[in-house]
Amino acid sequence: MPPQQHEDEFQQQALSALLQRWRTSRQIFRPRFPCGATNSLTDVSGVTVGHSTLAAGDVQTGVTAIVPPGDNLYEKPLPCGVAVLNGFGKPMGLIQVMELGELQTPVLLSNTFATGTLFNAMVKRSCQQFPQIGRPDSTINPVILECNDFYLNDIQAMAVSEDDALTALDGATKTFARGSVGAGRGMSCFGLKGGIGTASRWCETLNATLGVLVLANFGKLSELTLDGVRAGDAIAQIQTQLAPQVDAGSIIIVMACDRYLDSRQLGRIAKRAGAGLGRLGSYWGHGSGDIALAFSTQRDGVTLPDAELEPLLALAADATEHAIIDALLSAETVCGFDGHYRLGLSEVLDNLAN
Amino acid sequence: MPPQQHEDEFQQQALSALLQRWRTSRQIFRPRFPCGATNSLTDVSGVTVGHSTLAAGDVQTGVTAIVPPGDNLYEKPLPCGVAVLNGFGKPMGLIQVMELGELQTPVLLSNTFATGTLFNAMVKRSCQQFPQIGRPDSTINPVILECNDFYLNDIQAMAVSEDDALTALDGATKTFARGSVGAGRGMSCFGLKGGIGTASRWCETLNATLGVLVLANFGKLSELTLDGVRAGDAIAQIQTQLAPQVDAGSIIIVMACDRYLDSRQLGRIAKRAGAGLGRLGSYWGHGSGDIALAFSTQRDGVTLPDAELEPLLALAADATEHAIIDALLSAETVCGFDGHYRLGLSEVLDNLAN
Amino acid sequence: MPPQQHEDEFQQQALSALLQRWRTSRQIFRPRFPCGATNSLTDVSGVTVGHSTLAAGDVQTGVTAIVPPGDNLYEKPLPCGVAVLNGFGKPMGLIQVMELGELQTPVLLSNTFATGTLFNAMVKRSCQQFPQIGRPDSTINPVILECNDFYLNDIQAMAVSEDDALTALDGATKTFARGSVGAGRGMSCFGLKGGIGTASRWCETLNATLGVLVLANFGKLSELTLDGVRAGDAIAQIQTQLAPQVDAGSIIIVMACDRYLDSRQLGRIAKRAGAGLGRLGSYWGHGSGDIALAFSTQRDGVTLPDAELEPLLALAADATEHAIIDALLSAETVCGFDGHYRLGLSEVLDNLAN
Amino acid sequence: MPPQQHEDEFQQQALSALLQRWRTSRQIFRPRFPCGATNSLTDVSGVTVGHSTLAAGDVQTGVTAIVPPGDNLYEKPLPCGVAVLNGFGKPMGLIQVMELGELQTPVLLSNTFATGTLFNAMVKRSCQQFPQIGRPDSTINPVILECNDFYLNDIQAMAVSEDDALTALDGATKTFARGSVGAGRGMSCFGLKGGIGTASRWCETLNATLGVLVLANFGKLSELTLDGVRAGDAIAQIQTQLAPQVDAGSIIIVMACDRYLDSRQLGRIAKRAGAGLGRLGSYWGHGSGDIALAFSTQRDGVTLPDAELEPLLALAADATEHAIIDALLSAETVCGFDGHYRLGLSEVLDNLAN
Repeated sequence: MPPQQHEDEFQQQALSALLQRWRTSRQIFRPRFPCGATNSLTDVSGVTVGHSTLAAGDVQTGVTAIVPPGDNLYEKPLPCGVAVLNGFGKPMGLIQVMELGELQTPVLLSNTFATGTLFNAMVKRSCQQFPQIGRPDSTINPVILECNDFYLNDIQAMAVSEDDALTALDGATKTFARGSVGAGRGMSCFGLKGGIGTASRWCETLNATLGVLVLANFGKLSELTLDGVRAGDAIAQIQTQLAPQVDAGSIIIVMACDRYLDSRQLGRIAKRAGAGLGRLGSYWGHGSGDIALAFSTQRDGVTLPDAELEPLLALAADATEHAIIDALLSAETVCGFDGHYRLGLSEVLDNLAN
Repeated sequence: MPPQQHEDEFQQQALSALLQRWRTSRQIFRPRFPCGATNSLTDVSGVTVGHSTLAAGDVQTGVTAIVPPGDNLYEKPLPCGVAVLNGFGKPMGLIQVMELGELQTPVLLSNTFATGTLFNAMVKRSCQQFPQIGRPDSTINPVILECNDFYLNDIQAMAVSEDDALTALDGATKTFARGSVGAGRGMSCFGLKGGIGTASRWCETLNATLGVLVLANFGKLSELTLDGVRAGDAIAQIQTQLAPQVDAGSIIIVMACDRYLDSRQLGRIAKRAGAGLGRLGSYWGHGSGDIALAFSTQRDGVTLPDAELEPLLALAADATEHAIIDALLSAETVCGFDGHYRLGLSEVLDNLAN
Repeated sequence: MPPQQHEDEFQQQALSALLQRWRTSRQIFRPRFPCGATNSLTDVSGVTVGHSTLAAGDVQTGVTAIVPPGDNLYEKPLPCGVAVLNGFGKPMGLIQVMELGELQTPVLLSNTFATGTLFNAMVKRSCQQFPQIGRPDSTINPVILECNDFYLNDIQAMAVSEDDALTALDGATKTFARGSVGAGRGMSCFGLKGGIGTASRWCETLNATLGVLVLANFGKLSELTLDGVRAGDAIAQIQTQLAPQVDAGSIIIVMACDRYLDSRQLGRIAKRAGAGLGRLGSYWGHGSGDIALAFSTQRDGVTLPDAELEPLLALAADATEHAIIDALLSAETVCGFDGHYRLGLSEVLDNLAN
Repeated sequence: MPPQQHEDEFQQQALSALLQRWRTSRQIFRPRFPCGATNSLTDVSGVTVGHSTLAAGDVQTGVTAIVPPGDNLYEKPLPCGVAVLNGFGKPMGLIQVMELGELQTPVLLSNTFATGTLFNAMVKRSCQQFPQIGRPDSTINPVILECNDFYLNDIQAMAVSEDDALTALDGATKTFARGSVGAGRGMSCFGLKGGIGTASRWCETLNATLGVLVLANFGKLSELTLDGVRAGDAIAQIQTQLAPQVDAGSIIIVMACDRYLDSRQLGRIAKRAGAGLGRLGSYWGHGSGDIALAFSTQRDGVTLPDAELEPLLALAADATEHAIIDALLSAETVCGFDGHYRLGLSEVLDNLAN
């Protein structure tokens, strides 16, 4: 039997095993390290998440708010680091985070054209809470991150309002929906339905929890690799009606840790999101704004020697991969702008497995 | 005579000479290199500048638009580089410029809290011009830079509208006002009135023009150094009613060059703005978002060896210093928010010189 | 059957399939894209590679030289970009490459403590070739990259001589050995024997070849993922005598492309090595100097729009993964310093497969 | 009287005043802030400096060692930050300092081609002191910074030996020579004799001392600005026999502070060296490796809010300018390679003043 036939056979075996896992357990990912209590960003004490979802015809979009603990981030900012894996994106607030290493507001996620409106909402809300802003204090630095959901959402409609931002902020709780909700409503990922996903990891040596939330909107189907299995082409053959993902999209990864870490260390942790993306088959495509941000929920503390940072780097990569799998599996199929639709991976796996 | 007396005497001599220059020539700066035809950013062929100024009571602010040549920057972006001298700022669009090295829209300048509105205006205008944005093209990357004019302007009023942005864009011309106009209306600089300034330099070896426009809103009076003369303390002694500049402010420096240069080279040129700032006494203060951006008006061309870049680096530092002096001298005294006012340097020099 | 048992079973299936592939084809990796003619860095026209290997008792180390085309890199440098994935390393020459975007010498690889000696060798060789260096020209910027082979090599012996560097340089050819040779002689990777590996990819849309050479010395065995199969723990259980890899090591990735690209674009390509590392299970460990450098063999040419860069990004990730697999499979078992030894992966797979 | 005549007259007045200052006080610089006790880097408690000078015919070069406090930097590194103002340089160790934010060895300065030898010396010395390096600890990261003294020194002779490095290290004391000594022996600055200079500043609000040492080897004479007075052209007219500085050279700025600061903050402080350079007329020339490094002598402590960092930024710019003036004034005239010579500024000012 010539090699190519062998290869095809081996790939087929791997896919079969993956589908068998899916049938048996509805799982397709094995965490390399212990998960947190709910495998969610909000396992990090004090962190909450809220959504505002717009789902009506051509408008399929929304806002997701990640709210760190503390009622006065403005005056008591948290250590924060950034990793720009690929800078084809329109984030707000990152230049200042890079300089000062701190997070001064909740993090808002939405579609690309909503960032201006979210900025306005955050500025107004902040001025309400802290009337001294600009009188005579200086300013506030809203952090707003985005992906482009134009395939499923009529992005030119600029449908997100300032109220939507406030709704997401005010509705933030420990328990939150994932998949096709909030900022994730209109997102695509590997030609399938993307959106919001989350995961967390417990680091025993540091007695610390690292949580990850992703807004997943990246990747071509042909690249999709599920727990090491290159499943994209197989899916494409069976789900022949899938539209290609015409633009590489983007992914936002937000991490939180309940251990005090400085901004340089948080930047190192954030960067490891890139390894997680690689494991899913991504290569941080040209047109993909792949941006990771990590904050600590502790304002002060004893500096951790970097040698002890090692486990958190490993956890960050693993949790990022898991959070994206979570987004894919949680996302329900959405039909939106101009009749475009994206299938949820769970639905696809069910089709393949039966 | 003990040294300190000598020193005081020498400083006094230097100040007297400066004032004598002012009386004689209304100039206080000697360019190190030949200026362009009008000593303005718009000496760079095809570049135009427009303002929209809001000046009514507590609202003293505005928008300035820098419009590169070409009617389709969206599909034919220009090479662009960035230097973040101090990242305490809220720019939009720079992360993508850093990644892709290109400018896809005009550059809009305004106050810090106007960036969201300017983003919205630029997105809507772009979608009008290029209906394919998001359908199925992906996005546009508006570049919006800001300083904080809260001392003279009621920044919480968020008075800048999308129409103001369009007015500045549509009104862009070769000839433009400087000083307390457009985005510069409410800006402070060295405790005096800041605003819009410009300068240009001619590079004979490259047959190229380098233009600079600044939005100057930085510095403490005590640091002010005019063509090498530390004049700040002397001004403070005489103009005793001057309010201190409570926050270090910010400065935006935009450069254009009519020689083809790649983004890395443009970043090197932009960075030299920092040397110009140093000559004025600035040290790029902690709270100052000191950000420089340089673009070429040529989309393609023969790559210049970096060794030949040398004169442009020297010109960039010199022109930045000159443009800030221009902003200071052009700025008329403004009284704004809460009765705050800033004196124009020309008025101050007139007072000192008589 | 409870989930964990399922999971164990599925992992066992995946491993079995991998071993079956190995038995059948002696391959464990399926390239995602077409390989170049010899699947080697030297598929890029004009690029040659030479080794100098020291293998005697406690000394197990060497030098590898990557020689770009052209006989006068000093005066005609090539476009070059850098990506520091994790900066725990002691490279020489990168700061200047980052500033000027060009490569002025061949790239030398060796162990960490040999960099000073290699620098001296390269300076002397350059002064021989170009007597004008320093008289009155200024300097040359040798690029020297390293990993730490202290586990198998007595690094304190500083055994590499200037002659070894020249031997590697002068012996550079299109055909070169891989595995435990040259700079790779003493390297460890995933607790196994690491070393020199290579791969190449053909980009049809650009009619371009991208070649990769790695000096692989990173990773813990437990992380090892072979074409998506987490094989590390299985190997550890069977090969119980394997010493743990006590330090995360490092990896150097050098890429060459025969398409003209500018340094920013080459930096983007180099960065995608990180995605390849992630696919192997790496998370760019704290103590690992993970550094990638990419150069073009074309000094001048038409600038490629970044949108067309996309395939090269995908190829870079894929070829990096393949080159590391190549290093692992090519590396013969080495016993060195203090009786330490590392098994070659081929030997390990043979053991597991039988 | 037309403007140009006025201008010439005013410049002449400024120069006359400068020379009068020189005659009266042998000073030409007025510190903006209080100096430390000896206006030296070693005002920072525990920091010492040593030189090894080679001055014989064509060989005019040397080594300068900056030794931080503590006898075990290897295991107890100090916080450290870096600013690459212009990366045309060949530093060693900076990539790792940027990643980990720490200094693990003394800082060695020398000529460009000595860095390999200094690396070897530092590795061997470190292995003597810490035999566990590589057995089984990993490595040490020597920080070696350089300027190119090829005009006065036969750099191809590679005259600096490992012993010279050890001599500088072992001879480090609180009191040290400046000017044409150590690494500064062969350096040129603004077409005059450059070399080692130092300054310090006292920060009352933080009860902290900031010390600066420079290895000054940059600038063209025409740019030279002394306390704001553009003196270069005047000097060139009178000292007509001065050879032009054919290459822009380089400058290394090393700062130490006795307040605990993290690496990000130290990087911000280091960067302000660039403002000091600008004040002297420099624009960080293309061919000048302008690199600043700042370390804290405190390993641990309470994190300083960045808003309180402000005075240290101002001091860093001021002290850098002063340290370069110190290098220029301290440097004695040197005649070296091929009969080249550089006049000391003190000698030049004496000539001008009489």
